[in-house]
Amino acid sequence: MVRWEPGARERLQAAALELFATRGFEQTTAAEIAQSVGLTERTFFRHFSDKREVLFYGQDLFLQAFLDGVDDAPADASPLEVVTAALRSGAALFPDERRPYSRTRQAVIDSNPALQERELHKLAGLVTAVTETLRTRGLDETAATLAAETGGTVFRIAFAQWIREGERRSLTEITSAVLRELLTLTGAATGAADERR
Amino acid sequence: MVRWEPGARERLQAAALELFATRGFEQTTAAEIAQSVGLTERTFFRHFSDKREVLFYGQDLFLQAFLDGVDDAPADASPLEVVTAALRSGAALFPDERRPYSRTRQAVIDSNPALQERELHKLAGLVTAVTETLRTRGLDETAATLAAETGGTVFRIAFAQWIREGERRSLTEITSAVLRELLTLTGAATGAADERR
Repeated sequence: MVRWEPGARERLQAAALELFATRGFEQTTAAEIAQSVGLTERTFFRHFSDKREVLFYGQDLFLQAFLDGVDDAPADASPLEVVTAALRSGAALFPDERRPYSRTRQAVIDSNPALQERELHKLAGLVTAVTETLRTRGLDETAATLAAETGGTVFRIAFAQWIREGERRSLTEITSAVLRELLTLTGAATGAADERR
Repeated sequence: MVRWEPGARERLQAAALELFATRGFEQTTAAEIAQSVGLTERTFFRHFSDKREVLFYGQDLFLQAFLDGVDDAPADASPLEVVTAALRSGAALFPDERRPYSRTRQAVIDSNPALQERELHKLAGLVTAVTETLRTRGLDETAATLAAETGGTVFRIAFAQWIREGERRSLTEITSAVLRELLTLTGAATGAADERR
């Protein structure tokens, strides 16, 4: 009979991140993670297929949060408005309480090329999914790809800023600031493009 | 005494691409590439450190073409104007005569995850170099990163379109079209943003 440990997944996740951050990802085994919170290796593998997966648990929810934003955008929303809705919905997954976790997780990922690649793959999957959803809204391929890729760029820049030491603004606020910067860049926000002609 | 074979590098490059495309990248050896054009393996390794490098030869020129565009932009150019200058200068490296080569090269890269990763790394290096150059022009980090990343997105989309079967427009023309689409996306080109309020 398999016993279900209440809260085991969360305890394993917290312990894994702590060990990855202090000892290093490669130097930490699944058995050590389990032992550190009084659980067995077998319990670990009931929750995660391997130690890497601890860092990518919830990936479906991550993707879905952005896609929900796309779905909720009005039918007549412009591509950028749809992307903005996706980014707002995605940012809600990262409340300020989560910032220390996200910061440590990123440090672990930055320390390991295979984890970096997996993270890039995750973000590329998000961009592809948003591109496809924009296509179903009638955008042509170039417009859909450009909008989704630009959204990905805004998310990466905003997220990197959000986890900086000393940063106090929420991810939602930072995302809005980066989106405003995007409009400034293309001359849409300030009329700078007109002034320059 | 080392004999220098005139045109050896170009012959090895053409032969390598042909073999990679027909037999597969992994199934082709440096010796086979050399033999197919009547050269020795030793001559191959005087020109390339390994067979992968054949596909990435000229990477410095690639990077420099974009950076030259940045350098040539007027001091008061907006970030997007600088990025546009970089893209125009970079696109000049890809005249229409080069399209069949670029198309085949991309097919080889798409067939191999390690080559894809190397190509991503090359493009990421380009974005980083452009970001740094924009920083030296006085842009803050967010604006510089956003401008350079957006430029990278425009290049990737334009390049993928350029090598499509049946595409007739030059890379410069397609790049301009994608840049216009970017302005439309952010409402800068058409005034759509104002109409929507």
